[in-house]
Amino acid sequence: MINFKSEKIFLKYLVKWLFIAGLVGIFSGTASAFFLTLLERATEVRQANRVLIYFLPLGGFAVAILYHFWGRSVEAGNNLILEQIHTPKKILQLRMAPMVLFGTVITHLFGGSAGREGSALQMGASLADQLTKIFKFTSKDRKIILIAGMAAGFGSVFGTPLAGAIFGIEVYVMGKLSYEALLPAFVASIIADEVTQKWWGVHHSVYSIVDVPEATLLNIFYASVAGILFGITGKVFSLSISKVKRLIGKVTTFKPLHAVIGGIAIVLLTEIIGTTRYNGLGLDVISETFVVHVNPYDFALKILFTAITLGAGYKGGEVTCLFFIGATLGNALSLIIPLPMAVLAGMGFVAVFGAASNTPLACTIMGIELFGTGVELFVGIACVTAYLFSGHSSIYSKQLIGRSKG
Amino acid sequence: MINFKSEKIFLKYLVKWLFIAGLVGIFSGTASAFFLTLLERATEVRQANRVLIYFLPLGGFAVAILYHFWGRSVEAGNNLILEQIHTPKKILQLRMAPMVLFGTVITHLFGGSAGREGSALQMGASLADQLTKIFKFTSKDRKIILIAGMAAGFGSVFGTPLAGAIFGIEVYVMGKLSYEALLPAFVASIIADEVTQKWWGVHHSVYSIVDVPEATLLNIFYASVAGILFGITGKVFSLSISKVKRLIGKVTTFKPLHAVIGGIAIVLLTEIIGTTRYNGLGLDVISETFVVHVNPYDFALKILFTAITLGAGYKGGEVTCLFFIGATLGNALSLIIPLPMAVLAGMGFVAVFGAASNTPLACTIMGIELFGTGVELFVGIACVTAYLFSGHSSIYSKQLIGRSKG
Repeated sequence: MINFKSEKIFLKYLVKWLFIAGLVGIFSGTASAFFLTLLERATEVRQANRVLIYFLPLGGFAVAILYHFWGRSVEAGNNLILEQIHTPKKILQLRMAPMVLFGTVITHLFGGSAGREGSALQMGASLADQLTKIFKFTSKDRKIILIAGMAAGFGSVFGTPLAGAIFGIEVYVMGKLSYEALLPAFVASIIADEVTQKWWGVHHSVYSIVDVPEATLLNIFYASVAGILFGITGKVFSLSISKVKRLIGKVTTFKPLHAVIGGIAIVLLTEIIGTTRYNGLGLDVISETFVVHVNPYDFALKILFTAITLGAGYKGGEVTCLFFIGATLGNALSLIIPLPMAVLAGMGFVAVFGAASNTPLACTIMGIELFGTGVELFVGIACVTAYLFSGHSSIYSKQLIGRSKG
Repeated sequence: MINFKSEKIFLKYLVKWLFIAGLVGIFSGTASAFFLTLLERATEVRQANRVLIYFLPLGGFAVAILYHFWGRSVEAGNNLILEQIHTPKKILQLRMAPMVLFGTVITHLFGGSAGREGSALQMGASLADQLTKIFKFTSKDRKIILIAGMAAGFGSVFGTPLAGAIFGIEVYVMGKLSYEALLPAFVASIIADEVTQKWWGVHHSVYSIVDVPEATLLNIFYASVAGILFGITGKVFSLSISKVKRLIGKVTTFKPLHAVIGGIAIVLLTEIIGTTRYNGLGLDVISETFVVHVNPYDFALKILFTAITLGAGYKGGEVTCLFFIGATLGNALSLIIPLPMAVLAGMGFVAVFGAASNTPLACTIMGIELFGTGVELFVGIACVTAYLFSGHSSIYSKQLIGRSKG
C-alpha cells in the first residue's frame, strides 16, 4: 500500500543534513560562544575605561583599512550572503568570519552603537560555506547550507533557536517563506544554540513579563496601534542608516575616512549628551525597560547613534540596536497606550526588529522564546502589524521582495 | 525623510482588515463555541447510551441523503475552500456551515471516528465568505477572507490562535508560506479564540508536559527518529482514507450507501474489539497518553476506524484523530525511544497532524500553545522531520505542491 522508495530518498536526505547541519551548528555555535565572550569582555573594559571612546575614530579607521586592503570581497557582509542565496556564484571566503569578529569587537570596545547579529550571520554562513569546498556541493545544496549557517548564527547569538531557524528561511525573500531549507535550518540552529549554551557555558539575558492582560478586542486594538508605531520606527531606522551612508559618501569615497567621520560624530554626541547610554549593545538598558520607566526619547537617540555608527561602516549588526530601540519605545508608549509597560517593551523588542528585517514570524517566535507563553498574542499582533507598516525598506538591501505588502 | 503615503495605504488596509477579520472572528468563534458545546453533549449522550452506536449506519445515511439532495455544491468541504483560494469562482454557500455542523454532530452522536477541524474550517470559511456578498470583494480580497475564515475556524476550535493563523496561511500550498493574508489571519484567529473562550465560556483540554530533558545532540537525534515514524504514520493515514474511499466507491457510486457500508463496518469492528475507545473524538484517550502507558496498537486501530469513517463520507475532520494517533504512537514509542513518555506523546500529537496536512510550522506553534515552552525544540524537530517523511500526500487533495520536499 505504501511505497517506501520515497522514504529511502528522504532518509538519505535526513542523514546527510543531520550530519552537515550538525557540523554547521557546532562551528557556528562555537564561534558565537567565542564572540559573545569577547563582546562581554570588550563591553566591560569600555565601561571601566570611559576614555576608550575617544579612540573610536582610530579603531574604526584601523578596521576599515583592514577591509580596504584584505576584505573587499567580504565587505558586503550580510548582503553578500543574501546575494549568494539568490544567485550562488562564489564560495564565501573564510576570512569573513575572523574579520567581522575582530571588526565588531573593535566597534564595541570603543563604544560604537551597533548590534551583533551581522557578525553572527557572517560567521555562521562563511564557516558553513567552507563545507561546500569539502563536500563539493551543488548550488542547490549551497543555498541550503548558507540558510542553515545564517539560522545557526542567529539562533546561537541570541539564544533563540526556533527564531533562528525561522529567521534563516524567512529573511531572504520578503513576504514569503520557503521550506527548501526547513530541516537543515532547524537542526543547525538548535545544535548551534546547544553548543553555545551547554558546551561553552555562554548564557543570555533573561527577560520576564509577568503581568499580561487578557487578549480582549480592545487590547488587541491597542497592540495593533503600538504595532503601527513599531513598524514606522523600523522603517525610519532602515532609512536613517542609508541616509547617513549617502551623506558620508558625499564627503569622501575612501571608506576608512567614513569611519573616522562617524567615530568623531559619536564621540562628540556622547560628550554633548553626557552619557554612554547609547554606546555599545545597551543590554543593561534593554533589561531596564521591563522594570522601570526609561527616557521617552531613548529610542530616538539610539536610532541616531546607530545610524551614524553603521552608516559610517562600523561592523556589528542592527538587531540588538533594534531590540534596544523597540524596547525603549514600547516602554515609553506605556505612558499613552493602556497596556502594561513590560508587555509593550517586549512587543517593541521583537516587533521593531521584525519590521526592519521583514521577518514577522521569526520575531513572533523570538518573543515566545524570550518571554515564554502568555504574551504571545500581543507579540504576534505587534509583529505582523509592524511588518506591514515598515513598507518595503529593509536593513538588508539584498532581500528580494517576494510579495508586496497590503 | 520618510514619505507617509505608503503609511496611509497601510492604515486603510489595517482598518479595513481589522474590521473584516474582526467580524470573521466573531462569526467563526461563535460558531465554534456552539459546535464544541454540541459535540460535547453528543459525546456524553453516546457514552451514556452505548446502544446509539448501532444507529451509526442510519445516521450516516440520513446525512448523506441530505447532502445528496441539498448539499452537492458544498460536499467537497475543505477541498472546495482550498480550490476557491487557488482559483476564486463562486461564493461558498451559507448552507455549508449548518450542514457540516449537523453532519459532524451526527457522526459523533453515533460513534463514528472523526475529528472536528473540517467542520470548523468549513463554518469559518463559509460564514466569512458571506461578507464577500455584502462588501462586494475582489477575488484577491476573497482569497484573503477565505484564509482568514479557515484560520479563525482552526484557531477557535482547538484554542490555539497562533497555530490557527499560521495554519491558514500555510495549508493551501505545500512547501511555501505566503504573507498575503498574514494580518487578517492573525486577527481573525485571535479574535475567534477570544470569542469562543471568553464570550461563550467554552474551554479546551489542558495538557501538561513537565519532565523535559535537555536538547542534547543525542536527544535531538532521538526526536528526529520519532519524527520519521510520525511522518510515515501521517502518510499512511492520508493514503488509508483514499484507499477506503476507492474500495467503497467500487461497490456503489450512491454515496448514502457508502455511509451505510462504513457505518456497519464501524459497528462490527466495535463489537469485535469490544471497546468504544476508538469511536468519537477520543479526547479522554489523548489526555491519558500524557500520564499512563496506553496500548501500543491504539494508533493503528484509530487509523483503521478513522479511515473507514471518513472514507465512507462521514462528516467531521481528520485533525483530532491525527492528534489521537500521534499521541498514542508517541506514548508507545517511549517503550523503545529513550525520551519521556509525555514528551513523545506531545511530539506525536502535533507532528502526525503536521505531516498529514503538510503544515510543519503550524504544528510547531500548536505544540508551544498547547504544551508551553520547554518542549518546543523537540516539537520543532519532530514536526519538520515528520513533514519531510510524509511525502507529497495530504489529507487535503486540493493542496497545491509549491515546493517538492527533500
